[in-house]
Amino acid sequence: MNNIELNLLKEVADMRMGKPLMGAFNIRRNGEGIERKSTEDVAIIPKTDKPGIDIIVKPGSKPEDVHIPVIVTESGVKDKVYNDFIIGEGAEVTIVAGCGIHNCGSHDSQHDGVHKFILKKGAKLKYTEKHYGEGTEGAGKRILNPVTIVEMEEDSYCEMETVQIKGVDSTKRDLDATLGKNAKIVILERLLTHDNQFAESNMEVVLKGEGSSAQVISRTVGQDNSVQVFNPRVIGEEQCTAHVQCDSILMGDAKIRSIPEIAAEHPDAMLVHEAAIGKIAGDQILKLMTLGLTAEEAEQQILNCFLK
Amino acid sequence: MNNIELNLLKEVADMRMGKPLMGAFNIRRNGEGIERKSTEDVAIIPKTDKPGIDIIVKPGSKPEDVHIPVIVTESGVKDKVYNDFIIGEGAEVTIVAGCGIHNCGSHDSQHDGVHKFILKKGAKLKYTEKHYGEGTEGAGKRILNPVTIVEMEEDSYCEMETVQIKGVDSTKRDLDATLGKNAKIVILERLLTHDNQFAESNMEVVLKGEGSSAQVISRTVGQDNSVQVFNPRVIGEEQCTAHVQCDSILMGDAKIRSIPEIAAEHPDAMLVHEAAIGKIAGDQILKLMTLGLTAEEAEQQILNCFLK
Repeated sequence: MNNIELNLLKEVADMRMGKPLMGAFNIRRNGEGIERKSTEDVAIIPKTDKPGIDIIVKPGSKPEDVHIPVIVTESGVKDKVYNDFIIGEGAEVTIVAGCGIHNCGSHDSQHDGVHKFILKKGAKLKYTEKHYGEGTEGAGKRILNPVTIVEMEEDSYCEMETVQIKGVDSTKRDLDATLGKNAKIVILERLLTHDNQFAESNMEVVLKGEGSSAQVISRTVGQDNSVQVFNPRVIGEEQCTAHVQCDSILMGDAKIRSIPEIAAEHPDAMLVHEAAIGKIAGDQILKLMTLGLTAEEAEQQILNCFLK
Repeated sequence: MNNIELNLLKEVADMRMGKPLMGAFNIRRNGEGIERKSTEDVAIIPKTDKPGIDIIVKPGSKPEDVHIPVIVTESGVKDKVYNDFIIGEGAEVTIVAGCGIHNCGSHDSQHDGVHKFILKKGAKLKYTEKHYGEGTEGAGKRILNPVTIVEMEEDSYCEMETVQIKGVDSTKRDLDATLGKNAKIVILERLLTHDNQFAESNMEVVLKGEGSSAQVISRTVGQDNSVQVFNPRVIGEEQCTAHVQCDSILMGDAKIRSIPEIAAEHPDAMLVHEAAIGKIAGDQILKLMTLGLTAEEAEQQILNCFLK
């Protein structure tokens, strides 16, 4: 692996040696799986009918980390991949996915990951997905359109963290989650767009089971001439609770639209939504400047805290 | 005027004698204007090209109340009316509109009011619109579909209060407001639906002028099998502030959807939205019951406060 590839793997999956130190993993580069390892509890099996892998976590398995990063370093690659995750009854697992694109050529590079998760009864999943782009010398764009489907059985728990901090020209994210009895989902979205980037995030969480709950926290920063659109949607079909919180910081000439929906279809659904869009308050900057920071440093400090 | 008519006028426009004690007014019954009065500062002129009136408030006129209620007492009346309001520069006026329908017949009764307001520089308007239906013995429905357009010039102020507490089977409300420099709008919506009623409320507030601001407070109660849908939309095109707050109480098997939108198209737009849907908390009821109220009385007390 060359330095560009190693750096992408570090950025998106925190792999410092080109592969994880422990646990099952699968590394995909320019549309092909290049290395793969299963463990006793986690089987990673390449699909035979289409690009992608099945990740099967044994029922009752102990907490384990699984890494499945994707990197694209050739300009003009258009990769679509289907990954299915089956988390067995009572299993606990952390999955680190992510996609890094280095594109300094003149053609667009694109990766569309379609991820389907099935969480069996009592399963616990922590999933992080980091998107990162670099190599902006050429005219070729870096495009990432992830689709995520989550089906949660009784008493299962899912924490999803999606991060896109830098270098992705265009993204359209779709997340659909369906929750069974007492299932709980926590979704953390962190997104920064700059230059002329575009980001759209659609989310639909259906609370089908009694006692199910959802928490969505979206924090985004729009810089320069970038555009962001958010459509988080929560539907309560049973006694359930949901809290959706979207905060966005406006900088430069960025434009941000937030169109959330909460729909109560059951008398015991309890749904709350909050959204705020605005620039950083001047007094926050001033306060940090009195501590010796420049205006730029103060702004960066605030953004770092906000997106942490 | 008969007792049914007098009662409708009391319900929607707080007129106890069949006409207001002071100020300009226009009373419309079953699709026809039946009584009208202009004053020195407020001219009410019937339109010649279509049903409706022009209400012209002189520039600089002192605070004055104008009443323009509509009542429908015949079953099967379908009335559409176009009212234009021009509030002169620096004028201050309170306009009480409203529509009451008594329909105990077998045909639907419907009133669609299209109201257009032009607020000249520095004008101040307080506008209330109350919708009320009664006479539920027959199969005929009471339907009200108001359209409201508000154009606000520099430094103008508009407070709009729309109330629908009882007896309206179906309503689709559309409100479009455009704000100039330093203009301010406050919208208060209070709505209760019961039985199989349906209510849809669409709102679009465009903050076009520097320093303009909008505050939207929507409080609704859904009872029985009624359905409510809300689409408040605020667009910030200049340095501006907006706060949208939608709270809904779920009762019986009611269903409520809230799909707000905040869109920041200027770096100095500051937009906030909050929405909550849920039933009355059990401990609130219990607290009032310890003060000697029955569960039903406690519930009613909470609703009264919420919709006040």
